[in-house]
Amino acid sequence: MNEESRGRSGSNYKWVGKVTRRPDGVDKVTGRARYGDDMKLPGLLHAKVLRSPHAHAKILSIDTSKAAALKGVKGVVTSADIPDHPEMAPPYPPIINDLHDISRNVMAREKVLYDGHAVAAVAATTEAIAKQALKLIEVEYEVLAHVLDPIEAAKPDAPVLHEHLFTYGVDPKPEKPSNLFRTVNGGRGDVEKGFAEADVIVEREFSSEPVHQGYIEPLACVASASEDGSVELWTSTQGAFVARALCAKLLKMDIAMLRVTPSEIGGGFGGKTTIYGEPVAIRLSQMTGRPVRMVMSRSELFRASGPTLGSRSHIKIGVKRDGTVTAADVVLWHQSGAFKGSPTGRAMDTFFSSYTIENAKVTVHDVCVNRPKVAAYRAPGAPMAAYPVEMALNELAEKIGMDPIDLRAKNAVQDGGESLMGTKYGRIGLNEVLEAAKNHPHYAAPLGPNQGRGFALGYWMHGGGLSSASVNLQDDGTLSVATGNPDIGGSRSSMRAMAAEEMGIDIEAVKPIVADTGSLGYSHLTAGSRTTFATGMAVINCVREIMEKLCALAAKKWDIPGEDVRWDSGQAIAADSHDLPPLTLKELAGMATKMGGAIAGHSEINAGGAGAAFSAQLVDVEVDPETGFVKPLRYTVVQDVGRAISPDYVEGQMQGGAVQGIGWALNEEYVYGEDGRLQNNGFLDYRMPVASDVPMIDTVMIEVPNPNHPYGVRGVGEPCLVPAPAAVANAVENAIGKKMGSLPFSPPKVLKAMQRG
Amino acid sequence: MNEESRGRSGSNYKWVGKVTRRPDGVDKVTGRARYGDDMKLPGLLHAKVLRSPHAHAKILSIDTSKAAALKGVKGVVTSADIPDHPEMAPPYPPIINDLHDISRNVMAREKVLYDGHAVAAVAATTEAIAKQALKLIEVEYEVLAHVLDPIEAAKPDAPVLHEHLFTYGVDPKPEKPSNLFRTVNGGRGDVEKGFAEADVIVEREFSSEPVHQGYIEPLACVASASEDGSVELWTSTQGAFVARALCAKLLKMDIAMLRVTPSEIGGGFGGKTTIYGEPVAIRLSQMTGRPVRMVMSRSELFRASGPTLGSRSHIKIGVKRDGTVTAADVVLWHQSGAFKGSPTGRAMDTFFSSYTIENAKVTVHDVCVNRPKVAAYRAPGAPMAAYPVEMALNELAEKIGMDPIDLRAKNAVQDGGESLMGTKYGRIGLNEVLEAAKNHPHYAAPLGPNQGRGFALGYWMHGGGLSSASVNLQDDGTLSVATGNPDIGGSRSSMRAMAAEEMGIDIEAVKPIVADTGSLGYSHLTAGSRTTFATGMAVINCVREIMEKLCALAAKKWDIPGEDVRWDSGQAIAADSHDLPPLTLKELAGMATKMGGAIAGHSEINAGGAGAAFSAQLVDVEVDPETGFVKPLRYTVVQDVGRAISPDYVEGQMQGGAVQGIGWALNEEYVYGEDGRLQNNGFLDYRMPVASDVPMIDTVMIEVPNPNHPYGVRGVGEPCLVPAPAAVANAVENAIGKKMGSLPFSPPKVLKAMQRG
Repeated sequence: MNEESRGRSGSNYKWVGKVTRRPDGVDKVTGRARYGDDMKLPGLLHAKVLRSPHAHAKILSIDTSKAAALKGVKGVVTSADIPDHPEMAPPYPPIINDLHDISRNVMAREKVLYDGHAVAAVAATTEAIAKQALKLIEVEYEVLAHVLDPIEAAKPDAPVLHEHLFTYGVDPKPEKPSNLFRTVNGGRGDVEKGFAEADVIVEREFSSEPVHQGYIEPLACVASASEDGSVELWTSTQGAFVARALCAKLLKMDIAMLRVTPSEIGGGFGGKTTIYGEPVAIRLSQMTGRPVRMVMSRSELFRASGPTLGSRSHIKIGVKRDGTVTAADVVLWHQSGAFKGSPTGRAMDTFFSSYTIENAKVTVHDVCVNRPKVAAYRAPGAPMAAYPVEMALNELAEKIGMDPIDLRAKNAVQDGGESLMGTKYGRIGLNEVLEAAKNHPHYAAPLGPNQGRGFALGYWMHGGGLSSASVNLQDDGTLSVATGNPDIGGSRSSMRAMAAEEMGIDIEAVKPIVADTGSLGYSHLTAGSRTTFATGMAVINCVREIMEKLCALAAKKWDIPGEDVRWDSGQAIAADSHDLPPLTLKELAGMATKMGGAIAGHSEINAGGAGAAFSAQLVDVEVDPETGFVKPLRYTVVQDVGRAISPDYVEGQMQGGAVQGIGWALNEEYVYGEDGRLQNNGFLDYRMPVASDVPMIDTVMIEVPNPNHPYGVRGVGEPCLVPAPAAVANAVENAIGKKMGSLPFSPPKVLKAMQRG
Repeated sequence: MNEESRGRSGSNYKWVGKVTRRPDGVDKVTGRARYGDDMKLPGLLHAKVLRSPHAHAKILSIDTSKAAALKGVKGVVTSADIPDHPEMAPPYPPIINDLHDISRNVMAREKVLYDGHAVAAVAATTEAIAKQALKLIEVEYEVLAHVLDPIEAAKPDAPVLHEHLFTYGVDPKPEKPSNLFRTVNGGRGDVEKGFAEADVIVEREFSSEPVHQGYIEPLACVASASEDGSVELWTSTQGAFVARALCAKLLKMDIAMLRVTPSEIGGGFGGKTTIYGEPVAIRLSQMTGRPVRMVMSRSELFRASGPTLGSRSHIKIGVKRDGTVTAADVVLWHQSGAFKGSPTGRAMDTFFSSYTIENAKVTVHDVCVNRPKVAAYRAPGAPMAAYPVEMALNELAEKIGMDPIDLRAKNAVQDGGESLMGTKYGRIGLNEVLEAAKNHPHYAAPLGPNQGRGFALGYWMHGGGLSSASVNLQDDGTLSVATGNPDIGGSRSSMRAMAAEEMGIDIEAVKPIVADTGSLGYSHLTAGSRTTFATGMAVINCVREIMEKLCALAAKKWDIPGEDVRWDSGQAIAADSHDLPPLTLKELAGMATKMGGAIAGHSEINAGGAGAAFSAQLVDVEVDPETGFVKPLRYTVVQDVGRAISPDYVEGQMQGGAVQGIGWALNEEYVYGEDGRLQNNGFLDYRMPVASDVPMIDTVMIEVPNPNHPYGVRGVGEPCLVPAPAAVANAVENAIGKKMGSLPFSPPKVLKAMQRG
């Protein structure tokens, strides 16, 4: 193949950047899409889980005999049936990946550690029988004191969740176990000197509450285990390969013996990046010889699946009158839930990565508390790190009488700069994003009484990593594009667009498919905004392999040298000197199988270079002076999207991030009673924004292509959430003319702030 | 990778040739295996087909309005809803592959051509309603004269099935259409001269009846069509890619838009190599927007799915007293059923391919009759071609007083020889097979009264062709082996054995998977005994690619040149000079994803060189002199199996072929009434052998490895049927001391022959 064929770099695209028919649209609206529990198998059993009513207790005994004897009950599982992994590994955020912890999170072993912690599970012929059986299981507990707040939990006299968990990285090893299992530090320059140079210093405290991803489809799976040791699992997951690895390792199975088919997924937002019911369903299937379905109720999801972390923070920032930030010092407390591990690294990276601050110090404490283990939630860790920084910067801007966007621009990191944690930037779109926000009509629009405008800036370093793809050319010139990434935010659409663009064919001739783990190489999670970037790169590699094979086939057919053939607009074209008419894809595809075998491309990669993206957000709110109720009036998201492969999905991502940020900022929180039990475990009491709660979210897509991707992809799903809580909170502060710190800014808190002197 | 790593050629195998746990065993006996209609989808409709009660009739009108109005009926299909393909293509046996014909076979258009021909189909909420609706469809027929016998059908005054079908290859084109659509001829030498040189000539006539494959699982499928044009199909098929291609082309869909998942398959024997209900189910699903299940009843299978062809033949062979065959002339009439195309080429190739005959002439006539279109049945065409030849040779041996095996050995084709049709042989195992048969204790065992021993020799030229495979190495060193071939005769077992052998790892660390059409390259049918040969070669290619990548990874890890690393017994081994301990597969697999991406191998090939195999069979029978009932007493199959990768399956294949041959020889036949309607459309009246009808079938596996395959695979499923009907028939003749010619040798016919003067 002639080198000219490769690497389209222009922007004169036919499919990339165009709105096309959604590949998942029709099947989702007609109900044809198959979700987590849609696999109906003969003899299917229904599993239900008995959960702890205590926040913290020793399990003295479990008697399942009466439950097992109930007619219709086919199997009962406790931790005794889940292989133990007694060795504890160091914490790696944000995904729970220590088998010691996972085995205890999916089924409590020595202790229950939070309200809702799984204690036993039953598989029965009907869900009603399974529920009835749960009531017959007798568990003897020794209730222990519990702790919910990370700072309280870190104190030496706090109730200790894990007797064998000591603060990591302390030498010599501490004598006493501690819920504070890790403190990470970073920084540069001389903070004392920096503060001394400041004209104005702001020092404040903030907090945020755990919030749930609130995906529409609950965690749901069907497991079918064969007596020969092989297992099939259908599950609603962001990563079939990750679910497979975790289940296989936990259950001490050979990985190849477990085949995981990811279902169509009704939302994930990071919450479906680990396992909950899957290994329990597998064990129940192994014990009963029958397929087992497990679906968590909404109440179970709130009580026992990972929300994002809650945080407390202390921040101090100093600036000169000209806006130069001279020093910053932030301390953040993460509560990781009942098991160790929260996205501390992501928090560290996020604090000041949008800015060049010479003197900075950052500290994150990571603490276990008697709450469900946190899971990833869209840009894990970043919104809680951005929140105090952006709030403080807005106050500083106010104090020195500078426009808050100008303040950011003054300190903005530039192409070639580096983050506090040492990440080198390539070409980034920060300046363009700030400029667009500043010049947007929204920023100059007048405000009415009781109204306020907020601004915040967010940063996210995108993921790359392991992705695999196989693209198969059919006889008639159509393409099947198989990847291992569940399609959550439109990856089928973007794979299809890039494949069609690269090949130079009609987009409807490309069929994107999400494959199971049986026939494709390892593909990491659909998470970290990595899929269109990394898996897309694998797909492009596959298509290029096919183009090369087609050019070779044309050369063979024409009997001319391979380098005299180039691929253009879906055709093989011979060098002019040969005076040959082009061979179309369809013609070549029809010949392919007669000339050496089917034509396919395959790629297994570990993609790097996804790079950073920035999102600036403007929001107007109106506060009801009598109730403290906050109504968002207008919202604009400006974001560097690299290249919007499927712009409708990109806009959807930007809007979705903003909406979730509104929820975080104004309403969502877990309410625990004195007894450590969750009181608002349903959508009636846990208040997520619905359509009537939010205005139209305007989007401004800034395209600064990522030079490390053939189509400039950066990822778009996460930056849009990062600044959103801060932007909304800032708008509320501006509306009421008072400072607040504790998210969510729910009506009682706003009213209280307004009534403050 | 060092070249030493490649191409194991010894026979000191660890897994190849060993009996291991069946990969499909447990799931089949527990009922966990998912067959054609096991996909349960919400809103599933049940389809039933209205079938012609006439052997031959014009369709004047079809009124489906009353059926469509029945409560519960959601859709009705007639040929008007199936795209027409008015152009007729030339006949290519043995699979019906002319869209003109397929479109009319799946749904009659202008005429019905056989009893049971589909006329309309209904999809309803229950099967009972669908059946009821069929009774409300009003079809007006103009009944035409019909013809069932190929010689009758070829006569100029016979009723003509296709007004536009003329005898092919006749120049000028005949004036009148004819059911005799093709005559093929071949030969060499001078037959007249050969017969003049003969000392003894035998001239006889034979016939065989159509027989059904009788697979346990009926043809069954579930189709789900989306409004966006994509379709999913689950079906019991020998080739998901073939089913996809036929359905897509017939329905004028893009191939990539149709995803076909082959179910576990309850037998096929060639009968599931084309499509029947699939396109109708797809159309009904498209019309109703709901998934549609279609399962044919046993009666429908007999009436309307392809059996093997019926034949009539005339043979004349001459030999010298020393056993040299001097001349042979055979004329065979094939009836291809209602549409053109039967395996004439296979018949031509089979007649005399075991022998070196200097003067020979072969003719095959192919004729349409008012019976269901024939389909492939295990070694399609070969048993009917071998039957007259082997019967005549046995009579000649008798007449010249020569041992029948010696007669074959005298004329046996040798390594490097060629068939009558010009196929060059490489290394073949014919001599070894004949010698083993001659020396087998069975051949010398005494016979009692009314007992007879039969012998026959069979030949089959195996297929290669298009196969694809993907092998994925998991983190823990286990392997997923994905191929596109439904496992009918143990292909998962043989893929697993070859992958484990090649890689040098435990066989249980390899998981074979049959993939759907979405993620793998085109793979032709599991048929022609091609799968272990061709798809196995693709799997071996994949494993070698993985071994190469692992050696490269080890070299990188060790920082030594790639050529200093070889793969042996599941480990990368550095050249002695480096003094390094080996790196195990598990160690390397764990590193792989950290060093550039997941490790996988892929292969899409068009395999050639499968080569010929021979099967010699000995059978003893006892005939009841009062009833003519024949009881097989002893049966021995001697066969060149190349290399038996999974010997238990190979023995099963050899036994299965013999059992089917017993059925062909003694009992199985279609019985039509004067009205052209099938009278024995169920297993009570159509008598297949059951366990109590057959003796233990002894097997002798002769291993003469195929030099064109890394493990010497030849294929084994088909040669074992080829001589079986002749061997049994010969035994009956010897038991009663009379000649017979018309299969099956059922009790009335045997009695009649015994009573002959």
